[in-house]
Amino acid sequence: MTRLMTPDELEAALRAIGDERYHIHHPFHHLLHGGKLTKGQVQAWALNRYYYQASIPAKDASLLARLPTPELRREWRRRLVDHDGDGVHPGGVERWLALTDGLGLDRDHVTSLRGLLPATRFAVDAYVRFVREMPLLDAIASSLTEMFSPTIISQRVSGMLASYDFVSEDTLAYFKPRLTQAPTDVAFALGYVKEHARTAAEQERVLAALRFKCDLLWAQLDALHHAYVSPGHIPPGAFRPA
Amino acid sequence: MTRLMTPDELEAALRAIGDERYHIHHPFHHLLHGGKLTKGQVQAWALNRYYYQASIPAKDASLLARLPTPELRREWRRRLVDHDGDGVHPGGVERWLALTDGLGLDRDHVTSLRGLLPATRFAVDAYVRFVREMPLLDAIASSLTEMFSPTIISQRVSGMLASYDFVSEDTLAYFKPRLTQAPTDVAFALGYVKEHARTAAEQERVLAALRFKCDLLWAQLDALHHAYVSPGHIPPGAFRPA
Repeated sequence: MTRLMTPDELEAALRAIGDERYHIHHPFHHLLHGGKLTKGQVQAWALNRYYYQASIPAKDASLLARLPTPELRREWRRRLVDHDGDGVHPGGVERWLALTDGLGLDRDHVTSLRGLLPATRFAVDAYVRFVREMPLLDAIASSLTEMFSPTIISQRVSGMLASYDFVSEDTLAYFKPRLTQAPTDVAFALGYVKEHARTAAEQERVLAALRFKCDLLWAQLDALHHAYVSPGHIPPGAFRPA
Repeated sequence: MTRLMTPDELEAALRAIGDERYHIHHPFHHLLHGGKLTKGQVQAWALNRYYYQASIPAKDASLLARLPTPELRREWRRRLVDHDGDGVHPGGVERWLALTDGLGLDRDHVTSLRGLLPATRFAVDAYVRFVREMPLLDAIASSLTEMFSPTIISQRVSGMLASYDFVSEDTLAYFKPRLTQAPTDVAFALGYVKEHARTAAEQERVLAALRFKCDLLWAQLDALHHAYVSPGHIPPGAFRPA
């Protein structure tokens, strides 16, 4: 059914998946960066997304554990430093908590995961398990949503700074380093899959892994939109804005 | 923080969770049995719920595999017979396909899982993994949503038969045996957790397992409601009614 693509054709096919499925096209993203959300709705987004951010090092560590060489492990170890920090410079998880702090959420509440939407937990856990259990090629390919993240981050930061008096450059400090970290990550991961997906079947697995990842980011915004925007049905036990 | 409950107090606490969180209280259920959905919306429900039905034997088999005695395994094996049939009498999975057939869905399409909402997959997979990975007590407790299922099934069947010209007693054949199977299942599982949850911590795990299960049933209806009712945002790649 599928023929072997050249590496550049594979990259183009990956980018086409982003054009169709990346959550930059989700209505909740448009509301968020367009300044259309209340503070309570932004809190719900930040609270739920914390679980995603906090789970990233777990997925990266389980991937790192399966990389075969010091060179490859050092490459992936950089992601752990980016997210967990070095004890002096805060990592991504800490910077995300600066956002939830800035939004007036109690830090113990955020890290306790009380009030998390069950759908957030299911989607994030599915990602961590995918990376842990699938072949290395699929696991690395699932990181390739970073190909599309500089654009969504730029939209978020400029839109949120312009629209909300309850955010500042300090509270959005998570995002700025990601604008340089993500392209570095992509350079490696995209090169890896272009080199290692050598059969049509392997290329199809790479594309499926990216679709899966796009779908789980999308599902997280679906759940937020359903609970907090329209129709606004908050599941039993989930966070309720004050 | 918690004190040891008597077995009957534990049962009352389990029932209280159902009162709060069982999906009989979900707006999508009210629309479904109240005759407020289009055929396409009912198709979307049946198509997605197929994945849940088809996954039940996997979770039951992984639970059975950890039961220590022939008596306990025979008890749980009955569930496999109920869902997979005996080669003569159709099981629950086959009867669910009679429903999707009756709704005009192509059987190969349904069983291929094409068009499944990603959120359905994440929630159902979370259930199968929970049962596979958690202690036996928690795994058995997570089946206890069956305590509440006869009522929701009665509402579904009578409401759907009265409201939709595209369903019949034949297409709803899945449900009737469940009205007697579920109470038999519950008699064992509820007795098991009442006997084996002997500390306050174990009782809290039993309650948490039932909350988890209610949440994942709820999340499945949230995803259907969001995609197909309000606001009606179907995720990329998911089933689109004709």
